[in-house]
Amino acid sequence: MHFIAGGVCAAQGFRAGGIHVGVKTHAAWKKDVALIVSDVDCACAAVYTKNAVKAAHIHVDKRHLADGKARAAVINSGNANACAPMGEENAERVCAAAAKAIGCPAEDIVAASTGVIGQTLNVSVIEAGMPELYSSVSHSPEGSDAAAHAIMTTDTVKKELAVETTIGGRTVRIGGIAKGSGMIHPNMGTMLCFLTTDCAISPEMIKSALLDTVRVSFNRISVDGDTSTNDTCCVLANGLAGNAVITEKGPDYDAFVEALKALCVELAKQMASDGEGATHLITCTVTGAKSEESAEIIAKSVISSTLTKAAIFGADANWGRVLCAMGYSGEDFDPDQVDVAFASAAGSIPVCAKGRGLEFDETKAKQILKEHDVTIAVAMGEGDGSCTCWGCDLTYEYVKINGDYRT
Amino acid sequence: MHFIAGGVCAAQGFRAGGIHVGVKTHAAWKKDVALIVSDVDCACAAVYTKNAVKAAHIHVDKRHLADGKARAAVINSGNANACAPMGEENAERVCAAAAKAIGCPAEDIVAASTGVIGQTLNVSVIEAGMPELYSSVSHSPEGSDAAAHAIMTTDTVKKELAVETTIGGRTVRIGGIAKGSGMIHPNMGTMLCFLTTDCAISPEMIKSALLDTVRVSFNRISVDGDTSTNDTCCVLANGLAGNAVITEKGPDYDAFVEALKALCVELAKQMASDGEGATHLITCTVTGAKSEESAEIIAKSVISSTLTKAAIFGADANWGRVLCAMGYSGEDFDPDQVDVAFASAAGSIPVCAKGRGLEFDETKAKQILKEHDVTIAVAMGEGDGSCTCWGCDLTYEYVKINGDYRT
Repeated sequence: MHFIAGGVCAAQGFRAGGIHVGVKTHAAWKKDVALIVSDVDCACAAVYTKNAVKAAHIHVDKRHLADGKARAAVINSGNANACAPMGEENAERVCAAAAKAIGCPAEDIVAASTGVIGQTLNVSVIEAGMPELYSSVSHSPEGSDAAAHAIMTTDTVKKELAVETTIGGRTVRIGGIAKGSGMIHPNMGTMLCFLTTDCAISPEMIKSALLDTVRVSFNRISVDGDTSTNDTCCVLANGLAGNAVITEKGPDYDAFVEALKALCVELAKQMASDGEGATHLITCTVTGAKSEESAEIIAKSVISSTLTKAAIFGADANWGRVLCAMGYSGEDFDPDQVDVAFASAAGSIPVCAKGRGLEFDETKAKQILKEHDVTIAVAMGEGDGSCTCWGCDLTYEYVKINGDYRT
Repeated sequence: MHFIAGGVCAAQGFRAGGIHVGVKTHAAWKKDVALIVSDVDCACAAVYTKNAVKAAHIHVDKRHLADGKARAAVINSGNANACAPMGEENAERVCAAAAKAIGCPAEDIVAASTGVIGQTLNVSVIEAGMPELYSSVSHSPEGSDAAAHAIMTTDTVKKELAVETTIGGRTVRIGGIAKGSGMIHPNMGTMLCFLTTDCAISPEMIKSALLDTVRVSFNRISVDGDTSTNDTCCVLANGLAGNAVITEKGPDYDAFVEALKALCVELAKQMASDGEGATHLITCTVTGAKSEESAEIIAKSVISSTLTKAAIFGADANWGRVLCAMGYSGEDFDPDQVDVAFASAAGSIPVCAKGRGLEFDETKAKQILKEHDVTIAVAMGEGDGSCTCWGCDLTYEYVKINGDYRT
């Protein structure tokens, strides 16, 4: 298994593209609708936000995916189509427009939206632009690149990656594009991510693989603790790799999930790293916890702590905030067994042993924390449970971006 | 019942003071130890942080308050004495020093600390300064003022207030000093608050009154979602008002709790308003919820939402973030029944009705949100439950303060 280029166009038989149609009214040079199309029908599965307030596309997609099949995905940025007048009606119109261009039933289209909440989606510009969008889709890496750009909001870089593995003697590829940035918090998908694969796999197994993967990737990142109304992670599998169809768990399923997890963990880290205003990717590793679940709750609490995030922004080795965040995680543990160290490419430094502060070199600690990628390593001394979660620092720029995003 | 001046010295028989002894090493002009002393023994109750990592003073105080009695409280700022070497030993030494100066058993002293986590408390400077501190305490409002200043960390203004009421024909006073600022999140006391009263009340009833009060005051504010290791709310009642001792629930108890709640709600609002870097006090009122509990969970989620807090900083009427925060609160409700309005001294403006955005005047909305005190009014349309919670906005200054607090 190894990473490759090509994003959602890496797998056989997938075309993609993205153009500006006018949903984003203030920036005519910014792409705002993406289309991903398979040459043939796909097994398709998706997971959505656990927020009680859900964007309209989620209700529509759930109906369209009742049969576990889809042909294409259409995604707009610039408008969330959540809490908006005529939400579902407009989401259905987007699907219908894509279906007409492709020549398939509207029920075989999945839609997604991201952007401002509460404003009516300008669906007519999407309908008007659909023929141009469909004519732009391509099997080439440029197609995936255009789609990856078209789903961005406050993201500063596109998120795109693919992986290649061997299943049953056949080369299988999985690729993805994603957008993250704000309103990112572990509670299901927490962002938009569209994945394509030429693996032959049943709707039941692709759903299972997606759930197994999201749990250890997108659900382990946090940008700001806010779980969006629109989070969607969707995978399309068209079977063109020619492997024996995966219909049950076993070695082929495991190989597929291993590759899917590797891909999604990298995309999740790209999202955390490009969190709104972020200047650091923060990795928190918790080892020696009572269980994996316990380790995950504690690691999530640390990467979600506003005070810890602000300290990392300032390259301040304020490990007391790490212990504090562990303490209010809701997990029961013995603080007197906890060790904490900070690490990065510049080295590592233990700062707390058995719950008590160590003397340490502040200058060295600052050098370590000034690196872009920093790790907070927590050892609990209670058991064999471990987990890694990812987040980002809290910066002036986050406040600036979110102080006036809408107007 | 009405508010009066005098803070913790408003009630009969209480002296207070605060001086600089050297716990804060970088600022010799900043007071860092406060002492509150009653002329006679008090019924005393306290509630503490629910964080699993607790400051040393909490363990010491619980032992000292086993009999429900105390004479004085000593509080230092500049060092949290949490996760620090010799934590309990040093907290006991602080109590012993205060007891020696006052001439009472060390078990009749309650202690509290606030400041940096993980560093050894410089207890010898507190011991050395105790005679000067005790000689400085005064029954006058200046005594309370000095104590209120001595417990401040990043607070920009002292928090101090008192209230006067009549119980059983006698004038009863309750006063308090508090410190807040960062690491404030609803989960018990969430800060330091010391309250004094001359009401005659049993240890059992003062504990009950404190629990009833904290639930609807300090537990309904949030600054940054981080629950501190040191949160402490403590009340001393010396009985000098001469009312018949309150030993059970009834009209006298109700009158006392009414006054205590009024005082603590105001102190809680002062804390939220002076949250680190805050430029707005945000009040979220939720009405029409299924229950008070449900309304509280939803209101807390709104005032804790990083994205909502950043929007208020920018005076941006981004009500979608309010609905989003309600949606991830964990409460089940029908988004299609929700109304949202923003209000302040500059007027009020409905922005969402039945879960859908309304057309509204952006200029007027911005005027409303530029006021210091802004209200987010949520109507659920589900039942009779209501609750009000308080928070503050997220600003550049918060990030600056917390990016390099320790070094």
